[in-house]
Amino acid sequence: MTSASTSQTVRADGRAPDELRPVTITRNWLDAAEGSVLVEFGRTRVLCAASFTEGVPRWRKGSGQGWVTAEYSMLPRATSTRSDRESVKGRIGGRTHEISRLIGRSLRAVIDVSALGENTIVLDCDVLQADGGTRTAAITGAYVALADAVTWGKKHGAIKGGKKVLTDSVSAVSVGIIDGTPMLDLPYVEDVRADTDMNVVVTGSGDFVEVQGTAEHAPFNRTELDVLLDLALHGTSELAIIQQLALDEASR
Amino acid sequence: MTSASTSQTVRADGRAPDELRPVTITRNWLDAAEGSVLVEFGRTRVLCAASFTEGVPRWRKGSGQGWVTAEYSMLPRATSTRSDRESVKGRIGGRTHEISRLIGRSLRAVIDVSALGENTIVLDCDVLQADGGTRTAAITGAYVALADAVTWGKKHGAIKGGKKVLTDSVSAVSVGIIDGTPMLDLPYVEDVRADTDMNVVVTGSGDFVEVQGTAEHAPFNRTELDVLLDLALHGTSELAIIQQLALDEASR
Amino acid sequence: MTSASTSQTVRADGRAPDELRPVTITRNWLDAAEGSVLVEFGRTRVLCAASFTEGVPRWRKGSGQGWVTAEYSMLPRATSTRSDRESVKGRIGGRTHEISRLIGRSLRAVIDVSALGENTIVLDCDVLQADGGTRTAAITGAYVALADAVTWGKKHGAIKGGKKVLTDSVSAVSVGIIDGTPMLDLPYVEDVRADTDMNVVVTGSGDFVEVQGTAEHAPFNRTELDVLLDLALHGTSELAIIQQLALDEASR
Amino acid sequence: MTSASTSQTVRADGRAPDELRPVTITRNWLDAAEGSVLVEFGRTRVLCAASFTEGVPRWRKGSGQGWVTAEYSMLPRATSTRSDRESVKGRIGGRTHEISRLIGRSLRAVIDVSALGENTIVLDCDVLQADGGTRTAAITGAYVALADAVTWGKKHGAIKGGKKVLTDSVSAVSVGIIDGTPMLDLPYVEDVRADTDMNVVVTGSGDFVEVQGTAEHAPFNRTELDVLLDLALHGTSELAIIQQLALDEASR
Amino acid sequence: MTSASTSQTVRADGRAPDELRPVTITRNWLDAAEGSVLVEFGRTRVLCAASFTEGVPRWRKGSGQGWVTAEYSMLPRATSTRSDRESVKGRIGGRTHEISRLIGRSLRAVIDVSALGENTIVLDCDVLQADGGTRTAAITGAYVALADAVTWGKKHGAIKGGKKVLTDSVSAVSVGIIDGTPMLDLPYVEDVRADTDMNVVVTGSGDFVEVQGTAEHAPFNRTELDVLLDLALHGTSELAIIQQLALDEASR
Amino acid sequence: MTSASTSQTVRADGRAPDELRPVTITRNWLDAAEGSVLVEFGRTRVLCAASFTEGVPRWRKGSGQGWVTAEYSMLPRATSTRSDRESVKGRIGGRTHEISRLIGRSLRAVIDVSALGENTIVLDCDVLQADGGTRTAAITGAYVALADAVTWGKKHGAIKGGKKVLTDSVSAVSVGIIDGTPMLDLPYVEDVRADTDMNVVVTGSGDFVEVQGTAEHAPFNRTELDVLLDLALHGTSELAIIQQLALDEASR
Repeated sequence: MTSASTSQTVRADGRAPDELRPVTITRNWLDAAEGSVLVEFGRTRVLCAASFTEGVPRWRKGSGQGWVTAEYSMLPRATSTRSDRESVKGRIGGRTHEISRLIGRSLRAVIDVSALGENTIVLDCDVLQADGGTRTAAITGAYVALADAVTWGKKHGAIKGGKKVLTDSVSAVSVGIIDGTPMLDLPYVEDVRADTDMNVVVTGSGDFVEVQGTAEHAPFNRTELDVLLDLALHGTSELAIIQQLALDEASR
Repeated sequence: MTSASTSQTVRADGRAPDELRPVTITRNWLDAAEGSVLVEFGRTRVLCAASFTEGVPRWRKGSGQGWVTAEYSMLPRATSTRSDRESVKGRIGGRTHEISRLIGRSLRAVIDVSALGENTIVLDCDVLQADGGTRTAAITGAYVALADAVTWGKKHGAIKGGKKVLTDSVSAVSVGIIDGTPMLDLPYVEDVRADTDMNVVVTGSGDFVEVQGTAEHAPFNRTELDVLLDLALHGTSELAIIQQLALDEASR
Repeated sequence: MTSASTSQTVRADGRAPDELRPVTITRNWLDAAEGSVLVEFGRTRVLCAASFTEGVPRWRKGSGQGWVTAEYSMLPRATSTRSDRESVKGRIGGRTHEISRLIGRSLRAVIDVSALGENTIVLDCDVLQADGGTRTAAITGAYVALADAVTWGKKHGAIKGGKKVLTDSVSAVSVGIIDGTPMLDLPYVEDVRADTDMNVVVTGSGDFVEVQGTAEHAPFNRTELDVLLDLALHGTSELAIIQQLALDEASR
Repeated sequence: MTSASTSQTVRADGRAPDELRPVTITRNWLDAAEGSVLVEFGRTRVLCAASFTEGVPRWRKGSGQGWVTAEYSMLPRATSTRSDRESVKGRIGGRTHEISRLIGRSLRAVIDVSALGENTIVLDCDVLQADGGTRTAAITGAYVALADAVTWGKKHGAIKGGKKVLTDSVSAVSVGIIDGTPMLDLPYVEDVRADTDMNVVVTGSGDFVEVQGTAEHAPFNRTELDVLLDLALHGTSELAIIQQLALDEASR
Repeated sequence: MTSASTSQTVRADGRAPDELRPVTITRNWLDAAEGSVLVEFGRTRVLCAASFTEGVPRWRKGSGQGWVTAEYSMLPRATSTRSDRESVKGRIGGRTHEISRLIGRSLRAVIDVSALGENTIVLDCDVLQADGGTRTAAITGAYVALADAVTWGKKHGAIKGGKKVLTDSVSAVSVGIIDGTPMLDLPYVEDVRADTDMNVVVTGSGDFVEVQGTAEHAPFNRTELDVLLDLALHGTSELAIIQQLALDEASR
Repeated sequence: MTSASTSQTVRADGRAPDELRPVTITRNWLDAAEGSVLVEFGRTRVLCAASFTEGVPRWRKGSGQGWVTAEYSMLPRATSTRSDRESVKGRIGGRTHEISRLIGRSLRAVIDVSALGENTIVLDCDVLQADGGTRTAAITGAYVALADAVTWGKKHGAIKGGKKVLTDSVSAVSVGIIDGTPMLDLPYVEDVRADTDMNVVVTGSGDFVEVQGTAEHAPFNRTELDVLLDLALHGTSELAIIQQLALDEASR
């Protein structure tokens, strides 16, 4: 993703069009969770907690297979103006549901549920500060928390057998076209200006798990779609390395 | 989409891999709605009602712009076994929210809200019978109901000025890879078997409005993605013709 | 109900005061439901689906008796102006509850729950288009769907023993006094003008299951009540014949 | 209602078949309410509070007409075993809705909303102890509380003009057929045994406001219906006298 | 609490600052409840019903221990102006929750759950009329209803063994500082004027179960706190006697 | 609070009975909030965000007075085992309501609402990790966030006039008696073992705002109450210093 035309565009935060924001992954941010990560994509800050429990929901009992699910939420003042709590409103909004389901599907794509055995891992992704890309940061961080929870499960004997539970890693990034220029990892100010906005979830080996492209202002053609997919693959290949580096560090 | 390899595959309902199910669009199925369509994709049957009201929600007043939104729902016995009503459960599920939002976004992609003026059109898409592809049938039918409601608005003087309100048509279709074969317009039995499942929303001129691809069982690579997109574009180009034919018929 | 005085009144739709609207009962409107009927009383159109499941709610287990219940609902654009969905509002209105309970009671009046055995039949009555008399059309159609579901249960061995499950048929009709004239089967325009409005549920053998009379504008006396009951019995005797004719047709 | 056959039947509480339970109406049971009555039909005890407020709901503003509405509820331990609170369950049951609506309609039948002017009266009917006939006791007591609230409104100048606000009185009673004998004012033990159960709301001048008859176990014929209506009219004529006597007493 | 300074203050209702309102406790106000009390603190009137059921919630099964819990609620017209029902609003307010929990904790402080055995007693405290001190009246009355329910449990063999179930009595009273004068048992008019408001729950032997002091308008110092605690202990010692007198009366 | 008997007690974390856990207050933890603090009492970690908005709720308009309110919540994995989200359950629990109200009252005790003018400050206190004392940490941190929001309001001209908005500081601490020893600032392991548990809210000048003492296992006497109050005042005097030190640091 280094075409002459885009390399000269200057973004508000000084990045090149194909450059990620600074990404940091802090493991073990919580004392009690079996896996926990504070992930930051620039100013976007998401706390991902993995809760490991033996047993599975009733509909899965006796299957020999585990279950991984996720819940996404945003603190009321994660955004520039305060929004009402969903617990106070008494109902969960469509956007929250949609993102929770996306995170869960993305993680299940790299889990071998038979190797996990009848155990459940719930990923809570709470956005502490939102500046665009909260769902992609959540997926990227949740994978690391999930990996730690799987390690915990093996260490504590809840996951039996030597089979590999995680078949691959998974990360996600947003891409969009702004004033004709395809850009990687959009902060809020870019997100609202994008004509086309795409969230792409990719495995460590470079295959797609989810492709969600939306024409915000104008439909997009096949060429634009191809450029955006290239850009996304470039971003997730970098994120996969950052995830691996974080997992290579000894736990505190 | 007529490669030698796929043309010989036999589907349970006798279709070729790149063939749509029989599609019928019955306009004016309701007496009172400003636009209404009973759309059928094979056994999938969706009632799309467009309600035109003058005025817009409070947050849009004074903008000179209109608003189009959609609500999707499924009757309890649309499916092979009965499911509980969301009104009885007291909460709307994530899937319902997600599809309602998708339909709304798809229609707004082809509406010029300034030309619509401060009017609101609500599309109710109620699935009477579900056999896969309910969201794609809903989008395809809702566009026709929307077109009729726009015509109503012009005829009754609520939409003023000669500007074109609909900038293009829009339709949607599902595609998936089953046992290695890419297939168009999946009924329920195929949908549950697909490795990859994609819903694609396309304008009449062939641009993308939404691309939502999900790896159900195994991540998919770039080549598979490309084949699926080709297949989807083939399907939506046929749907665009069917929509136009329906709209060309004189209303009763 | 052919007194000289009323036979000369002209109704807006050309009917005589003691005449039903055109009634049509289309069986097997759905592919999957164990019984399903699209019933029409003039423009009022209700989809009645009967879902047969083996087993009964917990409180009835071990009783040897079955259970029949009903849920009534209206699509948002069934009416001349759109109304909000109860699933979106998060609560079911009093009117919906009241009619669901009425339909359930009416059907249970003709079911021998011991002959049904420990099976449950749920009747979903969804109003697709409303023009007065939706609850009476729902009861009339639901009976036919119920009869089909009972036949299904016998054919599939879920209902054992040769005992008659349905002890009688049941249908319902509305009656009212408009400008001093008692009238049968009121469409919406007549319903809102009626001084007294009565819904009467009657068995095939002519006994009452429910009598619900309400003084909308002025209390009514004993004579008026008697005339309305006569008129209702006249209507339900015709409906019983229409139900029987529908059931006599071979299923597709 | 004094046929030889029924006068000899002995009821569990020693009453004749056509005899009301002891009825007491205690006015001004609350200090603050504009009208309040503790009404007792035997052991059934309902607190009826009328709240008078100037102004009407938005949809009625400018009409010059007032509004009367009612809410019915039951304390958790009003019954022989405790039932869960609807506030705890988070939703109002169908039965509660149905009875609230019935009470409201019954009272509106004797109110001249134009004479009331743009004022609202809300009747809260809370069942403190339930032993059958709670809805009929509620209507009977609520009328007296309503009358007191109307008097309050006139005295405090909120109701202007000399027009009569209450056009008649209204009371209600239950009747049923038990083992072939028609009986008046059923306590719980009789209510559960009744084949047919009817609640009848009647004005002081003897006209019907509501007739709600339900076949609990077996459909009923025209003759039975007629006998029950006679019995109900006999009961409500006595209740009308008891209401008048209560209103004739000087307020404390 | 008989300091010279306070004994001369005249309260609106003629009481001395350290004087309770007239307190009456009417037992067996309901026919069916295992214990029931109508308690009055002046105009404040609370119906306390104790429901005894054998068995305990699932999380307590097999523990050999019983459970006591409470629910507090207020009728809509208990107050000087009508408030909306929580069942209608669909959610329980924070104040209701808080007081329900307080009553439950207060009663559990004097219950030996092992002596109670695996039985559950639910206390429903419904405020029929509110004039300040509803939570303290509720606790005081609920104790008496609880004592009657325990007696019922022993008499009917549900509570086995001779161990004492109630280890002490418990009552509660409010105190506050108004214009510099500490006062006991505040009615509504005093409550709203108090700078500091405290609810104190005390056992029959004079120990504290709960102390809840709140600075309504100005923080309070240690001396004021001490004076209020003295005053509260004076009040609860009187309430303990009134409770005992009520329990000494033979049940009807 | 340095009596010989308690100074020798060894707590699990090595503290003396009258010693606070390490307390840290990190200001400006969020970029967008007008005031924000990450407060830590040992392992308890609460994010307090103050949102300043011009204007007040409708019921306060035209009063010239501002409004301060608070919402408390806990992330699902703040605790040692995961708890369900209140947004998913669809209702806010009693404990959450109770603590939200307590925080709001505590802050309002040190705010001069007239000096604040018609502005609203909402404090969101989200517990990221819970190890006892979450409500006291929340109050202590929220005060600092509130102070920053007030400074913001003055700097941006929303708070007019030179009057002091904050009349004092406020902090809170828990105290309890464990095995006969009064202890300050209880972590979770001590909290569950405490016989008596008290939360005390105190101003910077040493006056009480709230005193909430609860006998968890055994009622407590006056002497115990006095010792606990002494201990609490000792703790809050230290917290007041820590708050001031945090506020003295220059903002980043």
